[in-house]
Amino acid sequence: MTTAGSEPTLKSRRERRWREFYERPLDGKLPIFFRDGRLYDCLYAQQFNRETLDRLCALADHMRTITKEKGGDDFLQSLLSHKRAMLYFSQPSTRTFLSFASACHILGIRVLEIRDLKTSSVVKGESLDDTIRTFSSYVDLVIMRHHEAGVVERASWGLNGTPRPLPVINAGSGADQHPTQALLDIYTLNRYLPGGLDGKRVVMVGDLKRGRTVRSLSYLMKNYSGVHLSFVAPKAFRMQPDILDFLDRHAIAHDETEDLLAAVEKADAVYMTRIQDEYDQTAGESKRIDYSPYHFTEKHLEKLPKKGIILHPLPRREEIAPEIDEDPRAVYWRQERNGMWIRAALIATVFGLEDQILSRSA
Amino acid sequence: MTTAGSEPTLKSRRERRWREFYERPLDGKLPIFFRDGRLYDCLYAQQFNRETLDRLCALADHMRTITKEKGGDDFLQSLLSHKRAMLYFSQPSTRTFLSFASACHILGIRVLEIRDLKTSSVVKGESLDDTIRTFSSYVDLVIMRHHEAGVVERASWGLNGTPRPLPVINAGSGADQHPTQALLDIYTLNRYLPGGLDGKRVVMVGDLKRGRTVRSLSYLMKNYSGVHLSFVAPKAFRMQPDILDFLDRHAIAHDETEDLLAAVEKADAVYMTRIQDEYDQTAGESKRIDYSPYHFTEKHLEKLPKKGIILHPLPRREEIAPEIDEDPRAVYWRQERNGMWIRAALIATVFGLEDQILSRSA
Amino acid sequence: MTTAGSEPTLKSRRERRWREFYERPLDGKLPIFFRDGRLYDCLYAQQFNRETLDRLCALADHMRTITKEKGGDDFLQSLLSHKRAMLYFSQPSTRTFLSFASACHILGIRVLEIRDLKTSSVVKGESLDDTIRTFSSYVDLVIMRHHEAGVVERASWGLNGTPRPLPVINAGSGADQHPTQALLDIYTLNRYLPGGLDGKRVVMVGDLKRGRTVRSLSYLMKNYSGVHLSFVAPKAFRMQPDILDFLDRHAIAHDETEDLLAAVEKADAVYMTRIQDEYDQTAGESKRIDYSPYHFTEKHLEKLPKKGIILHPLPRREEIAPEIDEDPRAVYWRQERNGMWIRAALIATVFGLEDQILSRSA
Repeated sequence: MTTAGSEPTLKSRRERRWREFYERPLDGKLPIFFRDGRLYDCLYAQQFNRETLDRLCALADHMRTITKEKGGDDFLQSLLSHKRAMLYFSQPSTRTFLSFASACHILGIRVLEIRDLKTSSVVKGESLDDTIRTFSSYVDLVIMRHHEAGVVERASWGLNGTPRPLPVINAGSGADQHPTQALLDIYTLNRYLPGGLDGKRVVMVGDLKRGRTVRSLSYLMKNYSGVHLSFVAPKAFRMQPDILDFLDRHAIAHDETEDLLAAVEKADAVYMTRIQDEYDQTAGESKRIDYSPYHFTEKHLEKLPKKGIILHPLPRREEIAPEIDEDPRAVYWRQERNGMWIRAALIATVFGLEDQILSRSA
Repeated sequence: MTTAGSEPTLKSRRERRWREFYERPLDGKLPIFFRDGRLYDCLYAQQFNRETLDRLCALADHMRTITKEKGGDDFLQSLLSHKRAMLYFSQPSTRTFLSFASACHILGIRVLEIRDLKTSSVVKGESLDDTIRTFSSYVDLVIMRHHEAGVVERASWGLNGTPRPLPVINAGSGADQHPTQALLDIYTLNRYLPGGLDGKRVVMVGDLKRGRTVRSLSYLMKNYSGVHLSFVAPKAFRMQPDILDFLDRHAIAHDETEDLLAAVEKADAVYMTRIQDEYDQTAGESKRIDYSPYHFTEKHLEKLPKKGIILHPLPRREEIAPEIDEDPRAVYWRQERNGMWIRAALIATVFGLEDQILSRSA
Repeated sequence: MTTAGSEPTLKSRRERRWREFYERPLDGKLPIFFRDGRLYDCLYAQQFNRETLDRLCALADHMRTITKEKGGDDFLQSLLSHKRAMLYFSQPSTRTFLSFASACHILGIRVLEIRDLKTSSVVKGESLDDTIRTFSSYVDLVIMRHHEAGVVERASWGLNGTPRPLPVINAGSGADQHPTQALLDIYTLNRYLPGGLDGKRVVMVGDLKRGRTVRSLSYLMKNYSGVHLSFVAPKAFRMQPDILDFLDRHAIAHDETEDLLAAVEKADAVYMTRIQDEYDQTAGESKRIDYSPYHFTEKHLEKLPKKGIILHPLPRREEIAPEIDEDPRAVYWRQERNGMWIRAALIATVFGLEDQILSRSA
């Protein structure tokens, strides 16, 4: 009884426009996510080129240096103290949530949050478009994580069509995109590999099929020269053909191997991942795999070159024992903290503050 | 086994005092909600007279102007940066919650929140009186939404009897009162109707029986001269006799009609509402109604005068198609944002900051 | 299928180290919770000696005095505005949560919170050690409440072993420790008893077996001279032998009585508690007790000396009728607010700000 004369047409017109947009190849979408030549919405790892990546890493470094003195903290916090950010998370995530909230604090931004969809107007039958547009009435930035693919993109697309657009940062979308995770991985590799990432051997280990971090990171490798990727994964969870094709097209050297120990011995960086059993398509799919060959143990630590580093997006399960943490080559806890800094640098960039921050001497 | 000698008497004495207060006619209650001739607790739409309404609207306008410069933001945020507000919401509400939290931020107030009653001491058997009084140990302002009628009033009454009273703002109470929604509606009508609300025709559409926004707004019309109200509603959900009596007593012109199109053609403002099915008293009561005659469609848009405006308290369902949003006469998104500003003006007024803010030049 | 070669050994080595630490007598644990001779982690009531207690009370008093002027608020808020605290609460608690959040605000600290374990990475199978270490990547202070004994201690122990340790404050741990509650009780007794706590008679009433506040407070009595404790409790919930032994060893006078009225007549302070039925070991254990002899009624109020005071950790149920609140000797609401100030003083002390604050004239 709720169908009126003209709405279905209007509604379907809007849905048609969205479909048309959503199904474009990536290059056709990117332009609307930039403003005045500058990053505005941050949705895909593929939006970052080498120049952007280098600038973000430099900005993050500079912010850390500035904040060694309280005067530097006060300066950064004064920049966006009049802004509010909405952290809208439909999926549990301790570290992504906390690192974004902390990044906002570093810049003085006040955080509003919805982490529990029961407390929102979705229960009154509101459309997602309207819910998101509501945020734009009150806040200046939306940081959004959603378990369904396309929803964060839709939020950004919808806001871009209103008289009061505001930037959207993707904090994890569906099974595939998690661009700020890729940013922090790049930042970490560049920070701890002597001379940076160019020309280095990176070994990716674990559930490479379903781990969005290793997928996003692989895309970003096209920005670095002479990188070699080695994939070590159980047969059921090997790196997928779309990524392998992408690497071939961009002439990025890669191989697959079953022999983790040999790969580690030649590695500059080992990127460990946990099994992503939340994406199992049949019950117990993950449990039937013997994942122990994809654990990093003391035996691997012995073989890892002196300047080699170990990364992990965390949380971990059994794939790295806590005692490995004490080795200085285990950089995953620093990697976690890097996430806060690179996200602060990203937000500062979105608000056009890069030059102002860089010009402040430490 | 928990009954002691004297408590029942004491307890019933308190309950008796409360009952005595609660059952007074409104005029007998209002005095305790003012202090030093100034608004202190904000519980009922009926507390606002024309002078207060005009001053709040002017203050909201001035705060918007000031904050066009960051210096103005900083000034406002400095005023109450040492204060804390409790947002205590027993009912889900995205926009009321966010707009109050944002209004607090504008004035520098730190927000503490309880949105999930499971995390509070109610589970340890604490009385509501005690829970509310606990807030007064830590915060300076309580903003409260409760699904049961009388609870917000009780909170305010209880606090007024303690040595540490603090202001309570009603953010929605039971099925009836939502005074800050009425404020933002008045602010919106005054802001976008040429020359303000006096002498204008306002059409109210939809579930007028159970929509607390249209009820509260009707009360406030007594403060404006020459307003004409037209009610367009399904038979089952017509505007109720108590409101019609009120309008008659205050000589506010009004009529009822089935013909939305004709009403729109003569309207200065059309106030749309959704069906309030959460208040259904028999299962499916709302579903049996054909609500489509109470939808605002392109056909109505064509008939609406050029300077006419469309309001909606949001969230909406099907009663306005998203494409209507693009018409400049659709002001409901601006109405939503107005809510943040008028709430900031209200809080500033409660804390006695009106003159200090108005005297700052923009 | 998730068992790898070396992890069990490594893991069990870590667990062994923890066990070894956890089972030490208290004196053997305390050193790691101090740094540079200063309180760092705050886990046990037993960590506080007379000098520390006196200094915390004086600091709390001074902070209250300073903040009578907004300039004083601004000064305090500037001190730690670059810091973030994690409030990690596995158990519902309105007042402990709010008072800590408010204490943080007084010092300018931004608060991040986890009050609902469902929104955290625990669901991805992360260990508690890792979850806590994650906090240390983003925040500067952990304030933690946990329903299981030992978990807060483990968090603190774990962080102390990392390159990025940070202070942990126990906000309630298992059935036993709640040191900041004991602090606020001491602060309240000293503040409202003429001449302070030395030489006073304190009557503790109610569920003394399972109430952690009366247990912690009893430990702290060893810091005061000439205190006399009277215990009034139902047979099933009498003060336990471990506390009685402790009092004997420290020559603290104490007795037990069934006669509340006689005890009140000689009391300087009466400390009321509710029945702790959440710790019932058999169903209905608490309901079978007649708790009414342990209620404080008007009859007791008449007998209480003029300068006597009534405390209660709150929330209360029936053991004190709300009308008692109006008597000036009922200090429990002020006690509640004292909790915010003494916690602010504690946090300031942990961050080494004591002298800076005390040297600011009010």
